[in-house]
Amino acid sequence: MTGTDQDYAPLSVETLGARLGGIETITRIVGSDSAAWQVKEVGDGNLNLVFIVKGSAGTVIVKQALPYVRLVGDSWPLPLKRAYYEYNALIRQAKRDPGTVPEVYHFDETQAIIVMAFLTPHIILRHSLMAGTRHDGLAGVLGRFCARTLFRGSPLSMDAARRKADIALFAESVELCDITETLVFSDPYFDAERNHHTPGLDALVARLRADVDLKVGAHQMKERFLTRAETMLHGDLHTGSIMVTADETKVIDPEFALYGPMGFDIGMLLGNFWMAYFAQPGHGNDADYQEWILGVIAEIWDTFTTEFSHLWRTERTGILFEASLFEDQGDGLGAEQALANKLQEIWQDTLGFAGVEMIRRTLSLAHIAENDSIEDEALRAQCEGRGLRLGRQLVVNRNGMDSIAVVNDLARIIAREK
Amino acid sequence: MTGTDQDYAPLSVETLGARLGGIETITRIVGSDSAAWQVKEVGDGNLNLVFIVKGSAGTVIVKQALPYVRLVGDSWPLPLKRAYYEYNALIRQAKRDPGTVPEVYHFDETQAIIVMAFLTPHIILRHSLMAGTRHDGLAGVLGRFCARTLFRGSPLSMDAARRKADIALFAESVELCDITETLVFSDPYFDAERNHHTPGLDALVARLRADVDLKVGAHQMKERFLTRAETMLHGDLHTGSIMVTADETKVIDPEFALYGPMGFDIGMLLGNFWMAYFAQPGHGNDADYQEWILGVIAEIWDTFTTEFSHLWRTERTGILFEASLFEDQGDGLGAEQALANKLQEIWQDTLGFAGVEMIRRTLSLAHIAENDSIEDEALRAQCEGRGLRLGRQLVVNRNGMDSIAVVNDLARIIAREK
Repeated sequence: MTGTDQDYAPLSVETLGARLGGIETITRIVGSDSAAWQVKEVGDGNLNLVFIVKGSAGTVIVKQALPYVRLVGDSWPLPLKRAYYEYNALIRQAKRDPGTVPEVYHFDETQAIIVMAFLTPHIILRHSLMAGTRHDGLAGVLGRFCARTLFRGSPLSMDAARRKADIALFAESVELCDITETLVFSDPYFDAERNHHTPGLDALVARLRADVDLKVGAHQMKERFLTRAETMLHGDLHTGSIMVTADETKVIDPEFALYGPMGFDIGMLLGNFWMAYFAQPGHGNDADYQEWILGVIAEIWDTFTTEFSHLWRTERTGILFEASLFEDQGDGLGAEQALANKLQEIWQDTLGFAGVEMIRRTLSLAHIAENDSIEDEALRAQCEGRGLRLGRQLVVNRNGMDSIAVVNDLARIIAREK
Repeated sequence: MTGTDQDYAPLSVETLGARLGGIETITRIVGSDSAAWQVKEVGDGNLNLVFIVKGSAGTVIVKQALPYVRLVGDSWPLPLKRAYYEYNALIRQAKRDPGTVPEVYHFDETQAIIVMAFLTPHIILRHSLMAGTRHDGLAGVLGRFCARTLFRGSPLSMDAARRKADIALFAESVELCDITETLVFSDPYFDAERNHHTPGLDALVARLRADVDLKVGAHQMKERFLTRAETMLHGDLHTGSIMVTADETKVIDPEFALYGPMGFDIGMLLGNFWMAYFAQPGHGNDADYQEWILGVIAEIWDTFTTEFSHLWRTERTGILFEASLFEDQGDGLGAEQALANKLQEIWQDTLGFAGVEMIRRTLSLAHIAENDSIEDEALRAQCEGRGLRLGRQLVVNRNGMDSIAVVNDLARIIAREK
């Protein structure tokens, strides 16, 4: 299914009950009297239909892909098959880090429908970071999610046949990857049609687009994104893909899943937290809250490396750095040497990807709510400009910063500049 | 077709004419009187049936995969689909570097048969390197072949959809890649079942298997081989996959084709030339001939970088380092900066892959004729030991050697040691 199946039809509030009411895996959760289901369309994302379906027994989310980008309309077609990639990513993430992604109850490939757990009272983390709300355990869940999904989707864990089958499966996801390749890595660095930025940034933007080291560095990150099939990535792991309560954290929306470099997910994630940090003067939260965000960043990285190291030492059952060559030969230190080298490589990639994310979210098509919602244009330009300056440093100097503390200090220094 | 189709049947000298005599793309070359075809089975490789088929009009090669490794028998099954990968690699190589691979006349996927040009009076380069024969233009053809196939199979040249389709196609080649992953990168570094080596090397082998830096380095190269889908590789580009006359060079047998790192093909190639250099004392050729081999190595690398740079400057029409971001913005030097960085990365990978190739060809299952044919066991051990020592240096110090001249000097120094 590369195009749209002729049997495909978009759901509506009116038709949903009749169309899904006979499916046992759904009625088991919602209740069998589908005529009495309360259906609400809540899709506020850019791409899909999303319904909350409430019945006598319970509530589910019904997500359906549209054959085009919802935000733009049918002038920008996008394959329905993205539901297939999202479904395949969700079931793999659920196995690799149980409890962090919504449970899937039902999948219909032709209709591009995923029926999954309704998360309540969760809200999108991005909104929470504007409201100045703290969340217990947030960094721990995110750091472990990255470590577990990245490790367990890689040849450190998988056998050759399963891994190659997954590489082939996700290699078919051309159009969604093309969005990332274009909007994240290329558009920000020249005057591309879909770009827009806050007017007060004109001088800085001109400087960045003339910055050879930055452009070469950003494209070296693009090359890694395109060619390094290290593991199955979420592919869009920003603070809008995370739902939270006071003490629970869930990761959603992996429709951009692909095989790519380990640093991509965690880099995009940290980049979004650094942008949220710079946006704080636009939201009236106190200095302690800003420091809480930097603390989350440090704890995500720390948790990630701790958990990744734990898995390296206890679960290295794949086809790379096999125990038969190291521990089994009394060479445990060889395995540790390889781990240290690998963590350093992931670290440098993480900084590079964080940097390109911060730049594209200010210059390319999709910006972030934390900045967009700042009405004072001069203040918004100041917040965004700080993100651009840190982003540039991370891309260009990614091999020269040796700890998360160094980067957080740099963020503090940039935040104090006019 | 992952297993063996029930319609598949191996060809024989007796049945070949009857089975292929009705295929116009073959009779057009060989002649239509298939009863008069002279058929000879000449497969001296490890895997396949190979027939020379001569008729009134001309001669062709008929290559057919067997559902197991010919050298070992049906205890080691191997999918027929490798003919499909070889065919797909051959037609891509023919487009990317016209004239260097044999022309394909006919392909039958079910029967795993490729009918292609008969090369005459070409012989396998490996035999030529034992006989002390020189070949005009050898290095030029090989350097350009690597540059053109590596560049034109990469995102520097291809669009996203065609490239991802090819990645998915070659990702199905699990079993052949597994041979490389196991025999090249893992087996040599522990006492694996299929290993064998010349007894005089015992002490050196024990030292190498206890060498943590070497094992970590070799597995870092394995990680690159597994995860860096930079371009379509030949996958088995040693001096036994090259056929030569006095002044013509052809590249054959790409059934191990895969998407992998650019340094792999050229590294394996140079590693085989360095082994041929060290093996010369076993073949009675003069010192000038040894130097000729080192000269070929230097010229291959020089031609490769010259041609790769030319393609970078004139054919960068893919999705990476797009001219729209560099030359079109007046940033030609940015593109040059990226080229220099990329060549340095390929260079370091080339040395690493050359090193693992030299080690596996001495310690793992498949050795090289240049060494195997040295009857004096002490002399053979000396030649092989020199290859092991250079191989170890290349893997461990691949980031610390800045030119082919430095490596050739190191080879000369090692060749003078006892």
